[in-house]
Amino acid sequence: MIPISRAFKFIDNEVSTLSSEKIDIASSVCHVLAENIIADTDLPPFDRSQMDGYAVVAADTKTAPVSLKIVGESAAGRGWHKTMKRGEAVTIMTGAPVPKGADAVQKVELTHENAGRVEILDPTEKGRYIIRKAAEIRKGKTIFKTGEIITENMIPTLAAFGYAKVKVAKQPRVAIIGTGSEIVEIIKKPGLDQIRNSNSVMLAVICQKFGAEPTILPNVEDKISDLKFEISNAAKRSDILILTGGVSVGKYDHTKTSLTELGAEIFFDKVRLKPGKPVVFARLGKTMVFGLPGNPVSAAVTFHLFARRAILKLQGASNIEMRTGSAVLASNARAAPQRDTYLPARLVTNELGQLVVYPLKWQGSSDFIGFSQADSLIFLPQGQQSSKGEVVEIVFL
Amino acid sequence: MIPISRAFKFIDNEVSTLSSEKIDIASSVCHVLAENIIADTDLPPFDRSQMDGYAVVAADTKTAPVSLKIVGESAAGRGWHKTMKRGEAVTIMTGAPVPKGADAVQKVELTHENAGRVEILDPTEKGRYIIRKAAEIRKGKTIFKTGEIITENMIPTLAAFGYAKVKVAKQPRVAIIGTGSEIVEIIKKPGLDQIRNSNSVMLAVICQKFGAEPTILPNVEDKISDLKFEISNAAKRSDILILTGGVSVGKYDHTKTSLTELGAEIFFDKVRLKPGKPVVFARLGKTMVFGLPGNPVSAAVTFHLFARRAILKLQGASNIEMRTGSAVLASNARAAPQRDTYLPARLVTNELGQLVVYPLKWQGSSDFIGFSQADSLIFLPQGQQSSKGEVVEIVFL
Repeated sequence: MIPISRAFKFIDNEVSTLSSEKIDIASSVCHVLAENIIADTDLPPFDRSQMDGYAVVAADTKTAPVSLKIVGESAAGRGWHKTMKRGEAVTIMTGAPVPKGADAVQKVELTHENAGRVEILDPTEKGRYIIRKAAEIRKGKTIFKTGEIITENMIPTLAAFGYAKVKVAKQPRVAIIGTGSEIVEIIKKPGLDQIRNSNSVMLAVICQKFGAEPTILPNVEDKISDLKFEISNAAKRSDILILTGGVSVGKYDHTKTSLTELGAEIFFDKVRLKPGKPVVFARLGKTMVFGLPGNPVSAAVTFHLFARRAILKLQGASNIEMRTGSAVLASNARAAPQRDTYLPARLVTNELGQLVVYPLKWQGSSDFIGFSQADSLIFLPQGQQSSKGEVVEIVFL
Repeated sequence: MIPISRAFKFIDNEVSTLSSEKIDIASSVCHVLAENIIADTDLPPFDRSQMDGYAVVAADTKTAPVSLKIVGESAAGRGWHKTMKRGEAVTIMTGAPVPKGADAVQKVELTHENAGRVEILDPTEKGRYIIRKAAEIRKGKTIFKTGEIITENMIPTLAAFGYAKVKVAKQPRVAIIGTGSEIVEIIKKPGLDQIRNSNSVMLAVICQKFGAEPTILPNVEDKISDLKFEISNAAKRSDILILTGGVSVGKYDHTKTSLTELGAEIFFDKVRLKPGKPVVFARLGKTMVFGLPGNPVSAAVTFHLFARRAILKLQGASNIEMRTGSAVLASNARAAPQRDTYLPARLVTNELGQLVVYPLKWQGSSDFIGFSQADSLIFLPQGQQSSKGEVVEIVFL
């Protein structure tokens, strides 16, 4: 049984980075950048008006109301590219370039236009309603770096600098196999002693969130020959193979035996962790193999801790840690005596601006109904007993 | 200019619910349930062992160590369905049914098996390591209700009860058109006075997060005839049409005029809001039309406030509000004098368990580079000036 930190090190050491590919910007969210994103233009590319109104010389408006001669119009996409003089004004729209000679804008609501002249009713000041060329970014500057995970709020930036296609790490191919003679496919009615496989589709859904491309393979019964055959086949066509079930010490827990007999190198098979003590990490050929517990909550927690990490590492992500924070416990909580513990939980904020974390009522590792409300995990080091009101570490899911 | 709450009411009144369809469980996340999810079986469906070990009568183990006769084996998927008696034990695996007559399990680590008998080294107690039939859920119980948005942690529950296909609201078809003579497609190099369209692809990406199916249509110049033609075409093939740009008071802001000339009913065109004062909500035939500001940050904020709401309402979501909370301000912040204000921000937690919100440095509504770091918005009612350390309302993005 190894500590979680040691398990992380095994993953970090063993997993290398896949090559890259170009994908469409519209499907790039959740993927990992394999190129720096660089401004190919100043932004704004010109002194830009923030208002509909008139470009003026601020000094002319000091004695407002003043009447100025309209000498042109600068519209978005169709600027006025002569030079404006004192006593003159140029009609200007939001987003349009401010003409040379002008140093301020007065908004249309504070003006009155008549017969080729505009009356500026209130003074404006130098720089007012103008965003200076390059105020947001200067051409050539790196905005996002290789290894960053693309979020939806990064999309406008990618678009603005012409990244219609974005170079990202190739999607890790993740094969998912549920094992256990008791499990049947979702479409089937479970017979005596059976339950449906609720792990494979859950893992497939989470995989996608971290940029991987999952394939759900058929369930396999607790038979070594079947397991070896399916593991061997799946490993050939995947970067990561995730098995659920069959990792404990029971008579029919064959995952580890099957991997060993296939010649896999096993890095760890037990972690000082609850839920999810029995968890296997191995390499078979070039494929990284995770054997996760069969209980759905244990499978979810160990996926987030270990498989997610490998998926991000394969993509060269610069940050492969889970997002953690601190929160105030809403009720007493305790860790297992000898294992670091993650408790499914739900976060709310209170009127003091505190983040309050409620441990979910659940019946143990098989209770995925309770887990369905989780948006976080409470982390408690082995043996720790924490009381209501204490600040604890949390992981955001 | 109407308050935000009034704008919400217009949307709530005007938007009705689409019909439903069945989709694959693996692609159901983010969609809105159009059926109740009901347990079609008890869970566990039988008294289930949580451990690999031996099913026993607890009373027999009081005087441990004791030797019991092994009379059978209950494996996951292959239970032992006779009745166990005092003095007997049944080998049992994690996930397997506990035989009738047994009332406890002892884990294998605390036993020793030899020649058809097992020595139970430590006492166990009634109910130990057994999850009782129906402890997690009883057959027939409703777990999730019509109108709930499906999250990844709900997937195991859907799977366990056979929802290989899930009935969800039809995906709203959202057409997206960027307007403005200054904007060019992402793949083009902007000419003099031009910028690339960074809004359409951003909105498409966010739409998907809320269960909609976006289509990005080509940009349209600031010409009423072109706009009318494209709006009319797009509206025929969409439930929601989102236009960006052309909603302010400039000479070439034609969105509202185009809609009016096409016979659309305009519900509002200005909201007491910053960023995003000029925002149009209208109905053209059966299509709901949003005219959002052209500045990317304003477009994002008004999308989250208004278009997101309509998209969720179309799907019959039971909760269409944005997720809000409270956080402690990391630096002074102020609202516009006469408009409720949303400031892009970033959240961290501190060692006191507080959620601390940092207003992002940004240059105004066009600064999407600053906005790329946002994970929240600070809400400040019109005129409010808040100081560092005060608790403010936030919206989670």
